[in-house]
Amino acid sequence: MRQADQDGYIFYPGLTAFPTTLGHEFSGKVVEAGALAINKRTGKRYEAGEAVCSEEMVWCGNCRPCADGFPNHCESLEEIGFTIDGAYARYLKVKARYLWSIEPLREIYGEEKMWQLGSLVEPTSVAYNAVIERGGGIRAGQNVLILGGGPVGAAACAVLRKSGASRVILSEPSASRREMALTMGATHVIDPTAVNVAEAVLDITEGQGAKLILEATGLPSIVWPDVERVIWEGRGINTTVVVVARADDRIPLNGEVLQVRRANVVGAQGHSGHGTFPNVISAMASGMDVSPMITKKISLDEADENCVMLQTDRDEVKITITKFD
Amino acid sequence: MRQADQDGYIFYPGLTAFPTTLGHEFSGKVVEAGALAINKRTGKRYEAGEAVCSEEMVWCGNCRPCADGFPNHCESLEEIGFTIDGAYARYLKVKARYLWSIEPLREIYGEEKMWQLGSLVEPTSVAYNAVIERGGGIRAGQNVLILGGGPVGAAACAVLRKSGASRVILSEPSASRREMALTMGATHVIDPTAVNVAEAVLDITEGQGAKLILEATGLPSIVWPDVERVIWEGRGINTTVVVVARADDRIPLNGEVLQVRRANVVGAQGHSGHGTFPNVISAMASGMDVSPMITKKISLDEADENCVMLQTDRDEVKITITKFD
Amino acid sequence: MRQADQDGYIFYPGLTAFPTTLGHEFSGKVVEAGALAINKRTGKRYEAGEAVCSEEMVWCGNCRPCADGFPNHCESLEEIGFTIDGAYARYLKVKARYLWSIEPLREIYGEEKMWQLGSLVEPTSVAYNAVIERGGGIRAGQNVLILGGGPVGAAACAVLRKSGASRVILSEPSASRREMALTMGATHVIDPTAVNVAEAVLDITEGQGAKLILEATGLPSIVWPDVERVIWEGRGINTTVVVVARADDRIPLNGEVLQVRRANVVGAQGHSGHGTFPNVISAMASGMDVSPMITKKISLDEADENCVMLQTDRDEVKITITKFD
Amino acid sequence: MRQADQDGYIFYPGLTAFPTTLGHEFSGKVVEAGALAINKRTGKRYEAGEAVCSEEMVWCGNCRPCADGFPNHCESLEEIGFTIDGAYARYLKVKARYLWSIEPLREIYGEEKMWQLGSLVEPTSVAYNAVIERGGGIRAGQNVLILGGGPVGAAACAVLRKSGASRVILSEPSASRREMALTMGATHVIDPTAVNVAEAVLDITEGQGAKLILEATGLPSIVWPDVERVIWEGRGINTTVVVVARADDRIPLNGEVLQVRRANVVGAQGHSGHGTFPNVISAMASGMDVSPMITKKISLDEADENCVMLQTDRDEVKITITKFD
Repeated sequence: MRQADQDGYIFYPGLTAFPTTLGHEFSGKVVEAGALAINKRTGKRYEAGEAVCSEEMVWCGNCRPCADGFPNHCESLEEIGFTIDGAYARYLKVKARYLWSIEPLREIYGEEKMWQLGSLVEPTSVAYNAVIERGGGIRAGQNVLILGGGPVGAAACAVLRKSGASRVILSEPSASRREMALTMGATHVIDPTAVNVAEAVLDITEGQGAKLILEATGLPSIVWPDVERVIWEGRGINTTVVVVARADDRIPLNGEVLQVRRANVVGAQGHSGHGTFPNVISAMASGMDVSPMITKKISLDEADENCVMLQTDRDEVKITITKFD
Repeated sequence: MRQADQDGYIFYPGLTAFPTTLGHEFSGKVVEAGALAINKRTGKRYEAGEAVCSEEMVWCGNCRPCADGFPNHCESLEEIGFTIDGAYARYLKVKARYLWSIEPLREIYGEEKMWQLGSLVEPTSVAYNAVIERGGGIRAGQNVLILGGGPVGAAACAVLRKSGASRVILSEPSASRREMALTMGATHVIDPTAVNVAEAVLDITEGQGAKLILEATGLPSIVWPDVERVIWEGRGINTTVVVVARADDRIPLNGEVLQVRRANVVGAQGHSGHGTFPNVISAMASGMDVSPMITKKISLDEADENCVMLQTDRDEVKITITKFD
Repeated sequence: MRQADQDGYIFYPGLTAFPTTLGHEFSGKVVEAGALAINKRTGKRYEAGEAVCSEEMVWCGNCRPCADGFPNHCESLEEIGFTIDGAYARYLKVKARYLWSIEPLREIYGEEKMWQLGSLVEPTSVAYNAVIERGGGIRAGQNVLILGGGPVGAAACAVLRKSGASRVILSEPSASRREMALTMGATHVIDPTAVNVAEAVLDITEGQGAKLILEATGLPSIVWPDVERVIWEGRGINTTVVVVARADDRIPLNGEVLQVRRANVVGAQGHSGHGTFPNVISAMASGMDVSPMITKKISLDEADENCVMLQTDRDEVKITITKFD
Repeated sequence: MRQADQDGYIFYPGLTAFPTTLGHEFSGKVVEAGALAINKRTGKRYEAGEAVCSEEMVWCGNCRPCADGFPNHCESLEEIGFTIDGAYARYLKVKARYLWSIEPLREIYGEEKMWQLGSLVEPTSVAYNAVIERGGGIRAGQNVLILGGGPVGAAACAVLRKSGASRVILSEPSASRREMALTMGATHVIDPTAVNVAEAVLDITEGQGAKLILEATGLPSIVWPDVERVIWEGRGINTTVVVVARADDRIPLNGEVLQVRRANVVGAQGHSGHGTFPNVISAMASGMDVSPMITKKISLDEADENCVMLQTDRDEVKITITKFD
């Protein structure tokens, strides 16, 4: 959002309603709770002190997609930090239904890391929604391929390794991101600028290919030949390709590949609904530590300069504001 | 609710919060709509005159089951006509999110029948939720068995016939209900007081059995031997038994039957969520006419005497109030 | 196969192993059965006289896809009439496991029509495998769109109407095929050379779009803009596009459409496995009459001239050999 | 099978066709392979020296369940070591389609342990088929409860921990089996003779209950009150109970529990099909080490005395023959 396009307008193409306070992907402490503010962890009213994180998608609960159980496709969506006030602030008012307790993380990680992991529940949920809810997950022992080692790709490595993937292969040009992914759950990393991705995947999997492929680069037309070759030449059938990164370009899809290899392509967006937030928190509580995604910690007054820096830097993954003074 | 138990208390075991105006399973015309009252049919604000029906379950949208997409299991449920005011009234205020337009029924059925079918969307949705959402539906050409020809069993006949069931077999002791079911979609009816149900089903299906069995009698321990024999002796595997009628008694389940025949047992309750209401309305609009379920039409001031009558009469199915003057 | 390409070679791009007797999509009478030739209808040895039809795909049962339950993707496939002798013959030897009894059709249709429908079980199973097994089917009351009114598209109309589709919309340029489809189960037909398909579908469905779209034209890049517009502008989410027709051209897929509308694209091939043949036969036995697909009946010695004629004629659907003398 | 019933007949109630050589759950080396003996790992003919394990279920591939993809329910089943000669022998002839390469285990575990793990692929596949194929698996972060710490229960701990379960709770009276399970993947163990199982589970899960419950005790009517209490009082809905142990007694099922908590009960048997064997082998190759299940290693000539001993000993889990001389 800090970035300008050629004409000087805001580059970010999504929904905004400025002026609003920015800030999403956050955790915090409940200070006050209304009489109807139910803590979904306990089924009782929130008490002050509860550590929580928040969905960023303020779904309406009334439209057809919401009524049918698909809040990620809400027709009257508001977004915290985009269309309504966000978390670059000391206090924030959020309806209880968008909050999820992160207390299960306190004992295993300690308070400081609990807050950091809490801020990562949302991006991890984007990955979880993509590969588990939309991609249908995997069965223990199957192989997966992640294209792109940004926050969603890295979190997908963690989620799929936790879900029992035998080989979690990440393709990512940045060396530092590849390193980071290996600490998150990737079992193999590939530099697509140095090797042929399809050949590397077929080699690593001994010719089997991948049951699930996540497109998280935003360059689908670039990576598609590799995607199709892995499907076509891999001996396994039933591959699901999940497209999670947003992109304008057209994917040159060969239907015959989907037919002969019994494959399919799925689109994914959002992080709400389907039990995703609480499942992610619970997975974190049992050892899925995605904190390596936070590559830099700053204070609130350093936010602006870091936003500027991010326009050119491709190595940092998550820059997290941990101090508000 | 009109019925007393042995000690003179209300017999109905479910949730109530009297005094409330009774009345659920209803349709009506929008008179006034709030600024945020969205018509899910159009995605725009409701306009006066729109014909609608209503869910009876006022789910909160905030608890864990609601947030996860399972409003039938809301932890803060209110029920129209049970815990809050219902439809034995000229006007009723209902939040737009519980309403569904029945305008698609107007042209094919005419206004009078549209209102009647509108009042049947809820009980039909209970059946649809049971056999489609919970039971997983069927594939065209498969056989089904419905035990119990009350409103839910009869509606299930209609839903499953519409869904492509080859043989829709209903077991029901009342002759008039059997007759009615044949007009709703049943292809075969059985009198369980006259024949052995399992033998009849195996005979009708030429030994195949049923892919889906709906327990809608409320006497599961009575019917279970027939259920298990159909599964055990039927040549088809993968039977799903859906238990939709409420009952206190214990089902004497033989796990080996589920193992050897790859079968499963599912519980079902409610009618909300999962696109069920709009799918039912759309199915009605394309010919699924469940109006034979309405076996008697009365005016509002005849309601009480008919409630008394229903305590002993087992032949009427739905008695519908069609006049309010 | 009768058609030559520019260089005079066989045009048909699939698997062949000539010289073989041609002929698939057939029915016949069991004359002799081996001791282990089990009739899957009865679980007992085949008896002479049983009316049967046959899969065309002779799957091996030994390879990884077969062992996993996906015979349509057999690694050692033989094809009756392509790589091994087919049905342009008085007698044919087929392993019992590829045969399915069509006796259930005898009483309702009579013997003559039974044989004809028997020959249509295979192409109908291609459609059934595409929309039900691969496409995940529909729920009663949902809308579908079929692109292409050849045998598979026409059979898909029948299967989806039987499965409870509210509106079955077929887009097909040939007037005679459109007429035929209306007798098979289509509720609406569109001429894509006369109207904009997407607009017509949105109009017919009152803005909802289609839950399932079948690409059966073989021209995916031509029809894709309409497919995406129906998904994008339709108010319903969760559309599945099934690509069943073979084609070389690339589909210009916009991933964002799949993301925002929670849609997916699936490839389908084959007709074997998953209970498809017996479900199709059972659906036929309960009224799904796909015989209008047979637009011409000939004798065996007229086969060659009709193959030549079919190279230019786009109106005939199935030309069936009903006489062998 | 070594055990006699009260009348002196064989106690084992399953299929046998003695005299046959006993012995199933085995691994071995390919010595000779027929021309059509395809190695599903490579898609090419087996070569001498390949390390393999074998399904015990010799499914026919021809009956209706086999043709539909459900070999665990084959109508003409033979069983290695029960109805046809088994592995208490130096050489054994098995059709290639029942074999699966265990070469992926060689590098990580070394040859000796590879053979042992190879012999455990079958019982692990029984557990995998139960909880993944039949139980539908879990999503990372969910809790599970395993009742019974015999081979299948212990293997289920390993499979579900690998699949991302947050808490894997085992209830088992034998202290040594509980110890063993903790090395296999259980995160918590309960002694049902010392504590109330339901209370312990609700306590461990902080009131949430279990998404998946495996009945592997063979005493379903004994454990059912705990199963239902975990479902009823646990705050999570959508529990699946998988019944895998064989038992004669009737489960006193309360349908209302399934209804109110959106739960279901599934039966499971067998280990074949659905990609289970290769998924288990691949999961083992990426760290799922179930070898603690082997609690004793013997030579072939000690087999008989150990079979006698097992009739009274409840602490040994798997006694494996590792020497044939």
